[in-house]
Amino acid sequence: MQKHNFSAGPCILPQEVLKKASEAVLNFNNDNLSLLEISHRSKAFVDVMENARSLALELLGLEGKGYKALFLQGGASSQFLMVAQNLLEKRAAYLNTGTWADKAIKEAAIFDDILEVASSKDANYNYIPKGFDIPEDHDYFHCTSNNTIFGTQMKKFPKSPIPMVCDMSSDIFSRTLDFTKFDLIYAGAQKNMGPAGTTLVIVKEDILGKVSRKIPSMLDYKLHISKGSMFNTPPVFPIYTSMLTLEWLKNLGGIKAIEKENKKKSILMYSEIDLNPLFKGFAAKADRSDMNATFNLVNEDLKETFESMLQEAGINGLNGHRSVGGYRASMYNALPLDSVKVLVEVMSELEYKA
Amino acid sequence: MQKHNFSAGPCILPQEVLKKASEAVLNFNNDNLSLLEISHRSKAFVDVMENARSLALELLGLEGKGYKALFLQGGASSQFLMVAQNLLEKRAAYLNTGTWADKAIKEAAIFDDILEVASSKDANYNYIPKGFDIPEDHDYFHCTSNNTIFGTQMKKFPKSPIPMVCDMSSDIFSRTLDFTKFDLIYAGAQKNMGPAGTTLVIVKEDILGKVSRKIPSMLDYKLHISKGSMFNTPPVFPIYTSMLTLEWLKNLGGIKAIEKENKKKSILMYSEIDLNPLFKGFAAKADRSDMNATFNLVNEDLKETFESMLQEAGINGLNGHRSVGGYRASMYNALPLDSVKVLVEVMSELEYKA
Repeated sequence: MQKHNFSAGPCILPQEVLKKASEAVLNFNNDNLSLLEISHRSKAFVDVMENARSLALELLGLEGKGYKALFLQGGASSQFLMVAQNLLEKRAAYLNTGTWADKAIKEAAIFDDILEVASSKDANYNYIPKGFDIPEDHDYFHCTSNNTIFGTQMKKFPKSPIPMVCDMSSDIFSRTLDFTKFDLIYAGAQKNMGPAGTTLVIVKEDILGKVSRKIPSMLDYKLHISKGSMFNTPPVFPIYTSMLTLEWLKNLGGIKAIEKENKKKSILMYSEIDLNPLFKGFAAKADRSDMNATFNLVNEDLKETFESMLQEAGINGLNGHRSVGGYRASMYNALPLDSVKVLVEVMSELEYKA
Repeated sequence: MQKHNFSAGPCILPQEVLKKASEAVLNFNNDNLSLLEISHRSKAFVDVMENARSLALELLGLEGKGYKALFLQGGASSQFLMVAQNLLEKRAAYLNTGTWADKAIKEAAIFDDILEVASSKDANYNYIPKGFDIPEDHDYFHCTSNNTIFGTQMKKFPKSPIPMVCDMSSDIFSRTLDFTKFDLIYAGAQKNMGPAGTTLVIVKEDILGKVSRKIPSMLDYKLHISKGSMFNTPPVFPIYTSMLTLEWLKNLGGIKAIEKENKKKSILMYSEIDLNPLFKGFAAKADRSDMNATFNLVNEDLKETFESMLQEAGINGLNGHRSVGGYRASMYNALPLDSVKVLVEVMSELEYKA
């Protein structure tokens, strides 16, 4: 039975990527060796790494603009620490839009008191704060573009007088933006880019080298850049699979093309949430995420019926995060529009039945 | 054509492991979803993680003895930093037996001056220093069990009056040892355990929580233990493949059984190096590694002939590291005895020809 995979991450990847990744585990490059058993210093793998790095910059429109792409380990959680290690000298400013933003703040607070320029914690993060000031005398401003758990997304980014750092883990490569506004972008691979186990970091080189502390090797962006993202053995399989996904996206027509598809999916999804009286959206309308739609049943008595209908339809991964409850439909790049249609049909059917 | 893969790491893995890992990328647990696209919080993956953690302890004979197993990210290079972060309060003692030991020392030196109890750097690390003292008033003693680059291996471990930490990246699960002598063992997966992208850490819980510094979350062993090695999204595929390799080893009869095979391979290899006048071993005989045999041609003029013969025989990954030159035959757990036989035949044939 075909599954419709709405998992929040690790999440659905394109079928052709899965097929190629599976083949490479047995026989990579027709060389009778597995991708897993070759040297990361071999030409074959160095080509994979370089291709992945340049595809990332190309898709974001950042080639030849002073940026470098790295594929590191440790997830966005490691970036919470690395950003502060590499950039925080005096003080930093953070926007608090959810659980992950909050964790980023706590990690940076090991180095210094952090200025929260604004927070939506008071309303369980169901909106994106606006109209805040970013002080000029801070080292950098940090924000989170999409809040997976709460289903909110920054639609506009402030004009920042200081370097702007953005955690784009859950919406990178999903929409067109002027990415040159950002000085550092990071994203765990396991949403729109690949399997869990690698993290993309895009950094403008001229913001580095300005702190006085001694940075441990594995946490040092400059060192990773100087070693071509191969200071030590990289996570070969996650990077290869990410490269395949970026190739898939490029062949589709890049971010512009996928953005159109993503819009179709989110419009369909939110129309149903708004028009079906049995459901209620969680996030403020102006700040709704095109990646993660969060919603609840108005009448919890229908829970059992709804969930057995979801199961019958082959819908997977729709449970909301425990901090919000209800449901979350994650509609990442690789999710087909058809899967959203199936979900919306189940929701309509429930209305008809109830 | 069949390849004989002597790569130093990432390296050969058992064929049945590669087959199962490849299948899981398409359809995991017969659930019509890829291993790469399911939630790491799903029962299916939590079972994988728990199985991998307990297999590691079981194979080392450390179950029920106060140890915990973690599968982290960042390679052994991240452990160089984490060991010091978690254990170094006043001063630490290190044994310097090679490039990686030296890097571990440099990373710990960010926190404090490090005592090198002994070093074989003077002889390009071609032996293991012996007869050194480990001071009682230091926080821990750190050593490297096997030196991949130089082909040396510690055959005996000192009786340490302070916690003993060991980097076993390149020989873990390859030989029987009394592992209870160690308080912390770490190993990048990409030799005897799995693909690159995860690192096994085995830690005796009672040595933790004794430093006064605030440890960043991602570097905090106690936090990772409290979260069942899932503080954040783990590298799903490398951990699953590691679990498969540990299952394969258990089914073979565990470390005792593989140790016998490894001995056969290394005896065959070193006999040829010693008896064939065209070759010269690099490492001191008493300290030769059963995992990595390093050797050079006595007469460099034979280089081209030898290397074309290697290629014809399907031998892959035999180049020595640039710090030693010549050749390195890595004979990890998954390398069949037959591959060593093929290599030894090529070496004999060269002698006959020359």
